Amino acid sequence: MKYELYYWPTIQGRGEFVRLALEEGGLAYRDVARESGKGNGVAALLRLLRDRSVKRPPFAPPFLKAGELLIGQTANILYFLGPRIKLAPQTTAARLWTHQLQLTVADFVAEIHDTHHPVDVDSYYEEQKKEARRYSAHFLKSRAPKFLNYFEKILARGGRADYLVGAQLTYVDLSLFQLVAGLKYAFPRAMAQAARKYRRVFALHARVQERPRLAAYLASPRRIPFSDEGIFRHYSELDLPRSRLKKA
Amino acid sequence: MKYELYYWPTIQGRGEFVRLALEEGGLAYRDVARESGKGNGVAALLRLLRDRSVKRPPFAPPFLKAGELLIGQTANILYFLGPRIKLAPQTTAARLWTHQLQLTVADFVAEIHDTHHPVDVDSYYEEQKKEARRYSAHFLKSRAPKFLNYFEKILARGGRADYLVGAQLTYVDLSLFQLVAGLKYAFPRAMAQAARKYRRVFALHARVQERPRLAAYLASPRRIPFSDEGIFRHYSELDLPRSRLKKA
Repeated sequence: MKYELYYWPTIQGRGEFVRLALEEGGLAYRDVARESGKGNGVAALLRLLRDRSVKRPPFAPPFLKAGELLIGQTANILYFLGPRIKLAPQTTAARLWTHQLQLTVADFVAEIHDTHHPVDVDSYYEEQKKEARRYSAHFLKSRAPKFLNYFEKILARGGRADYLVGAQLTYVDLSLFQLVAGLKYAFPRAMAQAARKYRRVFALHARVQERPRLAAYLASPRRIPFSDEGIFRHYSELDLPRSRLKKA
Repeated sequence: MKYELYYWPTIQGRGEFVRLALEEGGLAYRDVARESGKGNGVAALLRLLRDRSVKRPPFAPPFLKAGELLIGQTANILYFLGPRIKLAPQTTAARLWTHQLQLTVADFVAEIHDTHHPVDVDSYYEEQKKEARRYSAHFLKSRAPKFLNYFEKILARGGRADYLVGAQLTYVDLSLFQLVAGLKYAFPRAMAQAARKYRRVFALHARVQERPRLAAYLASPRRIPFSDEGIFRHYSELDLPRSRLKKA
């Protein structure tokens, strides 16, 4: 069975958390909305969203087709995929814990998205710049540190374990890698500071991106570049003001 | 084993989704932060959040203690509890689907929260009223209809099934009940209109609240009233303007 991912073809977005797992899992998969040809592309994605004969329709992309199953919600997809691609722990309790961490990643992602779309998700950033500045200032001061500190604490509590759930890489490590990669792109000044404080989180990011399969993926055209259309966007005016950058 | 719920004692909040499942499940449980006496109350909740010896610390309440397990994230708690309290379907595929719906409820809840806290979750509503008005107008026009329409579609697609996942009540029906109850409290004018459009969703709300265990709970002092400190808050200025109320 070949897994079929459905996600918007021009952004990393939430779909990227699934792509990273499929790539590190070493599976052949289809990224259907990025394929050309009859029956593929965004039309295929929209068809599954709208088709009245779909018994369990997802609310929004990403979703994954695995044989007869159609699975939506990023964290749910990863919970399903994890054991099948050897990126989940063995016990039920540890799998619940991995999922719990993934849901906390999802909460963080939602707040990151809102830095540029705090009041109207369907309008342009340019139409909510003032609100975005206020939101982002609070995000960088209070919210991002709360999440980063949490993951730092988990890594510290694991003792000498290299990864969030223990000695073995799981899908939530890939998601934490993506969070750090995206935050570095979006808020380079704030993250230059954060790197000195959340050393374990940033070390995990570095460790993950050197894994052979991940490194090959990141260097390939399959990795869509960050841009000002995704979740992580770089608007210099939302980053930490230069005047507040402290010397190391 | 007696389940122990940890959540803020004076609001329904996200903890209410767990309370509803425990109540309908007919289980004796402890609501630890609401209990007085040594070792209970909010202090017990904070201790578990902060204790460095906790191996798998939650990011935030609610969390559930089930024997040795400490489980965080509302949807994760319900995924764990569901089969144990006979409020989940039998098959793995149907359980993933139920969880997927619950994660969509969680997304909706986050947006509902942001109607009164769009730009700074740690400040008062009164400090972000202008932003809240803009957010809420868009929420009522576009976002709430998108979510309500989705659940309406699921109920319609189930044919004559009474509940979201089929003929049997599951925990996600209790959560949809809570969403409607909260939205009716927060946005009475907008929901008076919505009730005429999303008939299946509102009928499910009515059906759930008449279940004997739920009805007994809702009439008991264990049900904390809605207030202006929870997720669902009634600020008349955020509701649909009276001038836009259409006659039935």
